[in-house]
Order: sequence, then C-alpha cells, then structure tokens
Amino acid sequence: MEYFQVRTYTSADYEALCRLDEPLFEGMGGHVLFRHIEELFPNLFFVAENTQTHEIMGYILGGIHFNDPKTGKLIRIGVKSDCQRMDVGSHLVAALFTEMKNQGVNKVHLTVADTNTAAISFYLKKGFQIRKREEKYFYPNASRLILEKEL
Amino acid sequence: MEYFQVRTYTSADYEALCRLDEPLFEGMGGHVLFRHIEELFPNLFFVAENTQTHEIMGYILGGIHFNDPKTGKLIRIGVKSDCQRMDVGSHLVAALFTEMKNQGVNKVHLTVADTNTAAISFYLKKGFQIRKREEKYFYPNASRLILEKEL
Repeated sequence: MEYFQVRTYTSADYEALCRLDEPLFEGMGGHVLFRHIEELFPNLFFVAENTQTHEIMGYILGGIHFNDPKTGKLIRIGVKSDCQRMDVGSHLVAALFTEMKNQGVNKVHLTVADTNTAAISFYLKKGFQIRKREEKYFYPNASRLILEKEL
Repeated sequence: MEYFQVRTYTSADYEALCRLDEPLFEGMGGHVLFRHIEELFPNLFFVAENTQTHEIMGYILGGIHFNDPKTGKLIRIGVKSDCQRMDVGSHLVAALFTEMKNQGVNKVHLTVADTNTAAISFYLKKGFQIRKREEKYFYPNASRLILEKEL
C-alpha cells in the first residue's frame, strides 16, 4: 500500500518546495520557476505528499508548447534525498503524463545535464530516448541531452 | 531615429542575456527561465539590440495561461543599467503586447516585489493598475504586488 499520494500543487506548498528544491537544484532558480508554473500551467504541477505526516516528498513540473500544443515538456522533477528509491518519481511522472494526455499532448521532451547519470538512467527506464546532445547549453558551460518519449 | 531594434530572441542570444540578467536579477534564475521560455513561448521572448554594435540592451519574457488563453503574463523585463532611460523598456513592452494581442490575449498581469518602486512606477506609466498585495510571496520573505492591464 502506498503511504504517499500524488496531488496537484497548491500555493500553500510553495515554501516546503523551495526548501526541498534548494539542495537538489542549487542555483537553478526553483523558487522563481515554481511561481511561474503555478500561474501558467497549474494542472501540470504535482507534489507527492506523505499521507501520514503530510511532508512533501517530491514534485514535478510540466509545460506545453504554446505554438505546438501536442508537445509537452517535463520541466523539472525533484525528490527529497531521503525519499528516493520509493517510487515517488514514477508516480509523479505518471500523474504528469496522464494529465498531459488529457490535454492532447502526444510527445514529451526534457533536458538533462549530460553529466547527470542518475537522472538519465531514471528517464531511460521511463521510456525516454536520447535524441540530441547540445554543447554549452546551460550557462556558463554545461552541455545537455534532449530526451523524448511518445505518450 | 531609433538606434536599436526590438526583435524575437534566438538561442544565440542566451549567453549575452545571462550576463545582462545577473546584476539585475541576482539569484532569480534567469539562466533557467530563459531556456524554458525559449521552448514554451518562443514568440513572447524579445530582445532589444543596438543596431550598430549588436549589443543586447534588454529583454522581455511573456507567457499565456494554459487554462485561460486570454490572460497573459509579463514574466520579466530587464534593461542593462547603462541603457536605461532610452525608451528600450517601452519598446519591449509594446512588442510583447502586440504579439499577445495577435494571440487573442486581452488582459496581462505581472508580479513585482512591493519594494521595487522604480519598476512599479514604470508599469503604472504603461497603464497597469495595482490589483492586490500578497505577503511573503517570494521565498523566503518578500511580498509582491499584482498589477494588471487590459490590452
């Protein structure tokens, strides 16, 4: 039995998410990103919550291309380090993709630093495929992989 | 005669924008935001470029609410400190609003820290009105004003 639930983010989750995000994505502006996605794509922003303690264990953010509404983007996923290996990430991904499909999305892409082998391995297990490598994508000097998956 | 032009952002502008943004919005994740907006709302991302030197003088980012496509958001505007008071901001705002109107948007909102009097004054001159104040909006502890304008 799961002891956590995935539910839509609400603005009351913001502070907990900022604290969760800082050690995971230091300097990557989570506190700014959350506020924008909350307004622009409220249905594509999910959190996993411990059903007993109500602790936020992780989150996922998505978006849809304005000029190409069948293409979705997995913007970011973060799971607290002491909540990893509990399938939280899989449930977050499933919730996001279900909602994207409801909105007519049939292809999702994401960007990952080419050095982030844990994340790359996670995404490959979820059915993503590596489409492209792009040098110096992140400022000032980190390369990215673009991964894609049909929904 | 203008000696700058406003044009759509391209990914070749990214590094110059990161350098321009850092002193203006330190710690506010511009380098991350630019990459996401580049993919999600490419038509709502403009830069002002000096037509002689090709220096990037400023930028503006917008988005449209996925669940309410008549509502636009002015996500961020930044003008290099030595390019301010040259009407660059006004031209960037005009370009964004023209494109938003083309896309069917009839109302734009934005968020500004309630302490940022220079920005608030700029927006009020552009026809925005203050709609709401919200405590502790930015993590960890800054309040915001929500401003709105009919297009």
